[in-house]
Amino acid sequence: MTWKAIAIATAHHGCISSSSSIDLAEALERMDRDSSLLGIANSTAACDTEQLIDTCEADIILETTPLNAETGEPAAGYLRRAMERGLNVITANKGPIAFAYNELRRLAAKKGVQFRFEGTVMDGAPVFNMLESCLPGDRVLEFRGVLNSTTNYILAGVEAGESFQRCLEQAKRLGIAEANADYDLDGHDTAMKAVALANVLMGANVNPRDVPRAGIRGISSADLSSAARDGEAIRLIARARIVGHGVAISVGPERVPLGSPLASLRGTSNALSIKLELMGELTVIETDPGIEQTAYGLLSDMIRIHEQMGGA
Amino acid sequence: MTWKAIAIATAHHGCISSSSSIDLAEALERMDRDSSLLGIANSTAACDTEQLIDTCEADIILETTPLNAETGEPAAGYLRRAMERGLNVITANKGPIAFAYNELRRLAAKKGVQFRFEGTVMDGAPVFNMLESCLPGDRVLEFRGVLNSTTNYILAGVEAGESFQRCLEQAKRLGIAEANADYDLDGHDTAMKAVALANVLMGANVNPRDVPRAGIRGISSADLSSAARDGEAIRLIARARIVGHGVAISVGPERVPLGSPLASLRGTSNALSIKLELMGELTVIETDPGIEQTAYGLLSDMIRIHEQMGGA
Repeated sequence: MTWKAIAIATAHHGCISSSSSIDLAEALERMDRDSSLLGIANSTAACDTEQLIDTCEADIILETTPLNAETGEPAAGYLRRAMERGLNVITANKGPIAFAYNELRRLAAKKGVQFRFEGTVMDGAPVFNMLESCLPGDRVLEFRGVLNSTTNYILAGVEAGESFQRCLEQAKRLGIAEANADYDLDGHDTAMKAVALANVLMGANVNPRDVPRAGIRGISSADLSSAARDGEAIRLIARARIVGHGVAISVGPERVPLGSPLASLRGTSNALSIKLELMGELTVIETDPGIEQTAYGLLSDMIRIHEQMGGA
Repeated sequence: MTWKAIAIATAHHGCISSSSSIDLAEALERMDRDSSLLGIANSTAACDTEQLIDTCEADIILETTPLNAETGEPAAGYLRRAMERGLNVITANKGPIAFAYNELRRLAAKKGVQFRFEGTVMDGAPVFNMLESCLPGDRVLEFRGVLNSTTNYILAGVEAGESFQRCLEQAKRLGIAEANADYDLDGHDTAMKAVALANVLMGANVNPRDVPRAGIRGISSADLSSAARDGEAIRLIARARIVGHGVAISVGPERVPLGSPLASLRGTSNALSIKLELMGELTVIETDPGIEQTAYGLLSDMIRIHEQMGGA
């Protein structure tokens, strides 16, 4: 299997396309040096992302814009636009999966294109793909997850005796937390991931804004010490379960037994425990993921699309 | 999707086949009442398992004979015989995967039949299938696993203050341990599973008899208390890692940090941590599996074979 990049669109560093192929090493070097993609060998400038989506001759578009936690745009719009043209799409952005999954899934089916998003929750750890391919005939009844690295890093740090503020700063320095960590600390990021999982795995149709949500700002080291004395840890937990014909989702800090898998998470590690009708309870843990594991999520989706296209 | 049972072979309760379909509820009832399958509606008696394999008009044969930990027979022979006839096969028996995986895989390819075995390690938890379908382009560098329920049940029980003997008896009563629990206690069962995993996931070609192996008989409650004072638990761990062109496998009790996923396992729970070249470390835990989860392993393989045959 081989592939080539024939177009790159950015918000602030130029948009380029090529009738042959773009050298990605050169693109990275150019970004480091000039913060611009313009002028790379074999490429011509394009006006904007929409123009590139409308004209490029790609088999697959990879969508990796930053999260907009209010609407899922412009990511969802880019995906729609690409699918309308008959292109296969991959996104690493949970916004479209949380806000527009059901609509996008129907559009992909109508246009006969593939729509993949493994990297949106727990990076490249096979969560969506495991349920799709490896648990046939079974049904998800509920899940519990620790899905946000920043809050987990802070809670484990405060547990170990550091101050909240110091852990937060350290998380920013390490690139775990954004400069503005409000989305993490207030549970928005976790809520978006919970909705994305529930939409895909449980057929939910929930707006992230409707999810009852609490963050970790109120958790003090005294709370963590008190929990530890009872043999428990505090983690920010996303929960979903089938209730009647719907799915109830919530996000908030909970006490979990110190000896349990969810309490065992350190650093950026995430975990998802799923209860299935036939297979019972399964837990998937990814240990200390970084940006490479998100990249692997995109790569694994590319390979799956290639296989489905009949490639070898 | 529908299926029907057209033949059942047992070692001591008769072999039957049917030109239409065998009522499985009736078969279970008959086994409870008479300990024999003979005389069930629409069925005729056959001589033995070999005759049934040679003559039945099935699409799939499910092989669920008990483990022979010395040779993997007669299970491997049954699978060979069925594949030679062009039948797809599923086994829940780790013997053939530990002793004859590479040969059976080549035979399946040569005959153009499917050969599946998800239930052989960690019941229906997707271990083999996850690697096959959900981690494309990646490579297993090493794994660590707690793969045997009996030893885990006993170690967690002794840790909690019970006596070794009492935990063992309780495990037998609950059907977790066999009447003869030597294979569990001495690490044979874990070694077979480790070899099966290494053969399939890492391209190993190791004989289970060559695996360095220690069991848990020597572990006292004093050892477990001493470990607990150091913040550690003792678990029977299977390990494998790529070494040069081969795979090094070992089985033995190890200390693991109390806060780690492997130490968190209770009851019959099992776990496998895999280190991959691209995706890093992933852990899959199945919580408190029973016989239903082994059955689900067989079912999920049946559905996968059906899908590959072009069924819907």
